[in-house]
Amino acid sequence: MNEIFPKGHAWIDGNFVALAEAKISILDWGFLRSDATYDVVHVWKGRFFRLDKHINRFFESTKKLRMPCQMDRDELKKILAGCVEKAKLENAYVEMIQTRGMSANFVRDPREATPRIIAFAVPFGWILKQEDFEKGLDVLLTEIKRIPPSSVDPTIKNYHWMDLVTGMLNAYEKGNDTAILVDENNNITEGPGFNLFCVDENGIFTPDYGVLEGITRQTVFDLAKELNIPISKKPISIEQLKNAKELFATSTAGGIMPITKVNGELIGDGKVGENTRNLHEIYWEKHMDSGWSVSINEILAK
Amino acid sequence: MNEIFPKGHAWIDGNFVALAEAKISILDWGFLRSDATYDVVHVWKGRFFRLDKHINRFFESTKKLRMPCQMDRDELKKILAGCVEKAKLENAYVEMIQTRGMSANFVRDPREATPRIIAFAVPFGWILKQEDFEKGLDVLLTEIKRIPPSSVDPTIKNYHWMDLVTGMLNAYEKGNDTAILVDENNNITEGPGFNLFCVDENGIFTPDYGVLEGITRQTVFDLAKELNIPISKKPISIEQLKNAKELFATSTAGGIMPITKVNGELIGDGKVGENTRNLHEIYWEKHMDSGWSVSINEILAK
Repeated sequence: MNEIFPKGHAWIDGNFVALAEAKISILDWGFLRSDATYDVVHVWKGRFFRLDKHINRFFESTKKLRMPCQMDRDELKKILAGCVEKAKLENAYVEMIQTRGMSANFVRDPREATPRIIAFAVPFGWILKQEDFEKGLDVLLTEIKRIPPSSVDPTIKNYHWMDLVTGMLNAYEKGNDTAILVDENNNITEGPGFNLFCVDENGIFTPDYGVLEGITRQTVFDLAKELNIPISKKPISIEQLKNAKELFATSTAGGIMPITKVNGELIGDGKVGENTRNLHEIYWEKHMDSGWSVSINEILAK
Repeated sequence: MNEIFPKGHAWIDGNFVALAEAKISILDWGFLRSDATYDVVHVWKGRFFRLDKHINRFFESTKKLRMPCQMDRDELKKILAGCVEKAKLENAYVEMIQTRGMSANFVRDPREATPRIIAFAVPFGWILKQEDFEKGLDVLLTEIKRIPPSSVDPTIKNYHWMDLVTGMLNAYEKGNDTAILVDENNNITEGPGFNLFCVDENGIFTPDYGVLEGITRQTVFDLAKELNIPISKKPISIEQLKNAKELFATSTAGGIMPITKVNGELIGDGKVGENTRNLHEIYWEKHMDSGWSVSINEILAK
């Protein structure tokens, strides 16, 4: 198999290894049952953004899966920073993973498995490329229902993505950039790797149900408060989505990204909205602020 | 990491390898998005049971995921038989997997990925051990909703198991053998790796919605017809489950297995029912019938 790896580095089973060498057993339940959780933090100009919040969520997710992470926070930070340093990346997408691991002799009981921790760094990825910011995202609103919270707790960041991948395939085949999924009541949920926000005359709002509690989503709340813009969580209907003054997506993979088209129709005047632009700017400014970010070197020097 | 592998053998990326050497890249979308499908066929006394039906479903699943399997049926059979032969197993659990694979440079578009085929054989596994047949399964009926068909097509055999794993953990912690999940309307669906059947005065029935179309489930239909027992698919309520004369589970991992207790309460008189026993017996008889099974050696000699 001809595998072309991005620039990057990984840590697995106690060792830093080249990305091409980072492999897991096919008997790991993280693969065979998607019994795993993960988190992704980014590095911008050599600084992790809101690293502790990502680690908090990761630790919470491992607890909810009844396999609390046994690694110390500082040790995990050193591993994440080590992956970025060894990959020689200034801007990076850094993933930490805990799988259920393997059980001796392949016994079915998840409690018999030994969890496995993995980390890797690759170049920073954009759901919407920087140079396409003014154009914005052209999304497909699908009829696919995001896996509901009654089945899988969405606050545990997880790899159950078949619904999202189906949405992506539908979107790409129609020429859209990405997809949005709905919930059981046909309210808006999220897309592959991003949360959604609407802006109308009353302020900014985002779905309150059936979505990942994204760190960039939380950041939008924090920044909106700094900017004195009213913001809240509430259900968003398809009508509200289509009639929004502004729409934007949030993700560690690209930050705050305007959505200018839904199913080919313009949102507002089809241009990047004022709130979206302001939030986007202040979001990137915070990356150099030591209250919001920490340098790789500072972590490695400890 | 101290990994204790079962006896077995695998095939991956064009080569037969020892089970301990069978690994996939952590960047394979089959892991990072659980974007994969699989099938499991069993070997009993050196013979595959209903191999073509499993391969048909596997090929169908790869098509539904828009990554139709490029491997020829006879080649796949030789690989599966080869895993069993090299593992020196008389009775085996044989899994075939296709993942979305890796995309060059980690680009998000699933269409850019090159699918990966994997196969492995391990010793035959039992959800209910042979020696516990008369005791039967003691299951926990949970309130967890199986991931609905509006999110993930259950006819594509998939690794989205977090709901099932949560059910298993709940069951094991309470001392039950396994769990049953419900659908959005609180009708019965399935458990971790098995379909469910009820028997009442009108015959045998099994859920028609939100479940894997199991090959052993299909086999029960075929056998019931041979035995002239009425059988049908229809919704099963919790009441119907609890008041059934007989209950049984079906899986490649153990065949036809009596369920004698739900939430600690006996089903019927708590003994293995007549229909369950008859189906179980004829099920195992068919394993030596060349209309239903094929020997490893015959496949390897072709």
